[in-house]
Amino acid sequence: MSAQTPLLQQLIEALKALPGVGPKTAQRMAFQLLERNREAGNKLGKALLAAMDGIGHCQSCRTFSEQPLCGICQDPARSQSPLLCVVGSSADMQAIEQTGQFDGRYFVLMGQLSPLDGIGPAELGLDQLEQRLAAGGIDEVILATNPTVEGDATAYYLSELCQRHHVAVSRLAQGVPFGGELEYLDGSTLSHAFSGRKRL
Amino acid sequence: MSAQTPLLQQLIEALKALPGVGPKTAQRMAFQLLERNREAGNKLGKALLAAMDGIGHCQSCRTFSEQPLCGICQDPARSQSPLLCVVGSSADMQAIEQTGQFDGRYFVLMGQLSPLDGIGPAELGLDQLEQRLAAGGIDEVILATNPTVEGDATAYYLSELCQRHHVAVSRLAQGVPFGGELEYLDGSTLSHAFSGRKRL
Ligand SMILES: [Zn+2]
Ligand SMILES: [Zn+2]
Repeated sequence: MSAQTPLLQQLIEALKALPGVGPKTAQRMAFQLLERNREAGNKLGKALLAAMDGIGHCQSCRTFSEQPLCGICQDPARSQSPLLCVVGSSADMQAIEQTGQFDGRYFVLMGQLSPLDGIGPAELGLDQLEQRLAAGGIDEVILATNPTVEGDATAYYLSELCQRHHVAVSRLAQGVPFGGELEYLDGSTLSHAFSGRKRL
Repeated sequence: MSAQTPLLQQLIEALKALPGVGPKTAQRMAFQLLERNREAGNKLGKALLAAMDGIGHCQSCRTFSEQPLCGICQDPARSQSPLLCVVGSSADMQAIEQTGQFDGRYFVLMGQLSPLDGIGPAELGLDQLEQRLAAGGIDEVILATNPTVEGDATAYYLSELCQRHHVAVSRLAQGVPFGGELEYLDGSTLSHAFSGRKRL
C-alpha cells in the first residue's frame, strides 16, 4: 500500500509543477521540508500565494510588477531615456540590469514569436510597443532577444516595425553565443555585447 | 537597479529553501510559475500550508501522518504482524512498500545515529521502540537502515537493543550496494535484499 497520506500526496503532486522537478525530487523536497524545515515550508507557501495573487504586469514595460508601474518605469531618470531595450523575458531584463551598463527603458515581450505555438504579435504586446514608438521620445530601440532561431525571427519582425515608425534599431553585438540563453550568460559577455551593439 | 519587486524577491528567497535549489533555479521557478502557471503556483502554496500544518507523526511507527495512526498502523492485518521493519526515513518505508514484498509493521527512525550531529537514541525515538518490543507480539525485527557507515552503526546499536529484549533481529541481505541510499534503489534490488535477509 502507499505509505503516503492525502496531504502528502497533494504536496508531492503540486511540487511537480516546478520546472525540472520529477516525482522523486518532489518527494525528496516534501520530506525534507517536513523533517527539517517546516517554517521554511510555511514561508514558501505564503510567498507563493502572495506572489501569484499580487504580482501583475507593469503597464508600461510589461515586466512583473505588483504596482501599476515597475521600479524602472517609475524612475524619472530612466523613463525619459531615448533608448528602449526590448527583451524576451523579465529574467533577461534582470540579467541586463545586473551588468549596470544600461540606463534606458525596457519593453518585455514575455515570449518570442512562435506561430506554431500560437504566439504572434498580439501575445507579445506589440500593439503596446507601437503605441510607445508612436508617442515619440525614443531615438533607438535595442533588440536584445535571445540569440536563437526564434529570437532572430522576433528581432527581424521588430526591426521592420521600428523602421515603419522611423525609429533607429540596433541589436546586441556578436558576443552572445548562438543557441545560448541570455539569462544564463555571464555579466561581462553581456556587457560587451551591449556596448558593441550594431545598428541594423 | 534590481528589476525585482519585494513579492518576487520574497518568493525567490523562499524557493531557495528547497533542496538542490540555488538562486538561478529559484528565479527560473518563480518566473515560470508567474508566466505560465499561476494556478499551479497557488495550488502549491495551499498544499504547502496544509501539509506543514496538518502532517504530524504516526504515534505508533513515527512516519508522517495527518492522523494519530498512519494507514499501515491502522490496518488490522498488519498491525498484528510479528515482523517489525526499522527504517531510517519515510522515504525508505515508501520504497519498501513499493516492492509489495513486506506486509508487517514499521518503525521509522527519522534519521540515523550521528553523535557529532547531536542525533542519539532519544532523537530516533528508541524509547518508543523499546516499549513496542517490551509490549510483546514481535518475533523478529528487520533492520533496514541505509547500507552506509552511519546506517551500519545504527543497525549495530539496534541489534544489541533487540537482543536485550530477546527479540530475533535480522538485517537486509547483501544486495544493497555499500554507500548507496535506500530510497534510490530499484525495486528488485530491494526485493532480493528483503527476501535474503540474514539473521544476526
Ligand atoms: Zn515597467
Ligand atoms: Zn504508523
